[in-house]
Amino acid sequence: MKQKKRIAVMISGNGSNLQALIDHQDSLGGEIVLVLSSNEEAKGLERARSVGIDGICIDSNAFEERNMYEQMMLNTLEAYEVDLIVLAGFMRILGAKFIQTYANRMMNVHPALLPSFGGPGYYGERVHQAVLDAGVRVTGATVHFVTIDTDAGPIILQECVRVHPNDTIQLLQKRVLEVEHRLLVAAVRLFCEDRLVVNKNCIEIVGMEE
Amino acid sequence: MKQKKRIAVMISGNGSNLQALIDHQDSLGGEIVLVLSSNEEAKGLERARSVGIDGICIDSNAFEERNMYEQMMLNTLEAYEVDLIVLAGFMRILGAKFIQTYANRMMNVHPALLPSFGGPGYYGERVHQAVLDAGVRVTGATVHFVTIDTDAGPIILQECVRVHPNDTIQLLQKRVLEVEHRLLVAAVRLFCEDRLVVNKNCIEIVGMEE
Repeated sequence: MKQKKRIAVMISGNGSNLQALIDHQDSLGGEIVLVLSSNEEAKGLERARSVGIDGICIDSNAFEERNMYEQMMLNTLEAYEVDLIVLAGFMRILGAKFIQTYANRMMNVHPALLPSFGGPGYYGERVHQAVLDAGVRVTGATVHFVTIDTDAGPIILQECVRVHPNDTIQLLQKRVLEVEHRLLVAAVRLFCEDRLVVNKNCIEIVGMEE
Repeated sequence: MKQKKRIAVMISGNGSNLQALIDHQDSLGGEIVLVLSSNEEAKGLERARSVGIDGICIDSNAFEERNMYEQMMLNTLEAYEVDLIVLAGFMRILGAKFIQTYANRMMNVHPALLPSFGGPGYYGERVHQAVLDAGVRVTGATVHFVTIDTDAGPIILQECVRVHPNDTIQLLQKRVLEVEHRLLVAAVRLFCEDRLVVNKNCIEIVGMEE
């Protein structure tokens, strides 16, 4: 039988997407072996440790140079023999070397339908604010592989969320987050089953029914 | 009883969106009083005339200056006391004066989920080609009011269309077109019922359930 994929989840805060993955551990086809946080207070660290997953904090502020910080993270990820990195609310920009090292092996969840409402400056509540300001009727969530260009990597899964009249950032965020959790679990599962084939900037999902 | 809205449809070609409106004439709450074409060969002119709607061709090539061409169209629309203009595959860029004259009274259908895949250069099959090249999982259709900025006017209605594996431009276009027809009919109906209230760049639909 094929060996289980080894998954690291990188967080900076609450880690509700991490929790979704933890809740579906048994069906992921992979094992969460490490949770890396950029700060010690991140609630996600507790979530991990409470279920026996190693939770490590590497504080970016403790390093003079970003290179050193990222090298420290790379060394840690290598030590855990990580196959897949999931960015689940990780609030640091990653450098080229880090991204290259995990090309097509690092995924991120974006709370909108890329290419809409993505790119530098579009994160967290700002995304939903922009959606409401634009007056669109439909938004959604996107899971994609991470590339140098922010939010422009190959798209793995997307799903729509309707914008309601009188929606607020909080109401919209709540509905989108439910979709994020579902898509992220599905995307990790597809990766662990070796069903994601990247051609240029497009991803073929092996054996997917329409 | 309130007077029926008078609708003009502007076309350059086949006019399948025009046909969708003709097929729903009875339930629009408005009357299509005029079809304006930029060329005499447009099949949409036949569609109109065959059901007793005036079909007029104003050939843009017959005018030295665009101003004159647009003034001619404005005079014609005024003569027909038009309340609403629907752009249904009209392939000419309209000038500021024309657009101002029918601000919030001229709608367009775009075969994607704006703001994605919109703007100058995104028309017809090019839109679907861009969607397929981008590898997105979701596209759709948008009905919006026309403003000076191409494809950036207030959004009236939007609906999603899933991109399938092995989709072609033609397959995708066919599925999106079905949605375009449905959304356009619904948007015209809302306009005729005076239910579209524009606040800045957002549209409130009066009495819409979520």
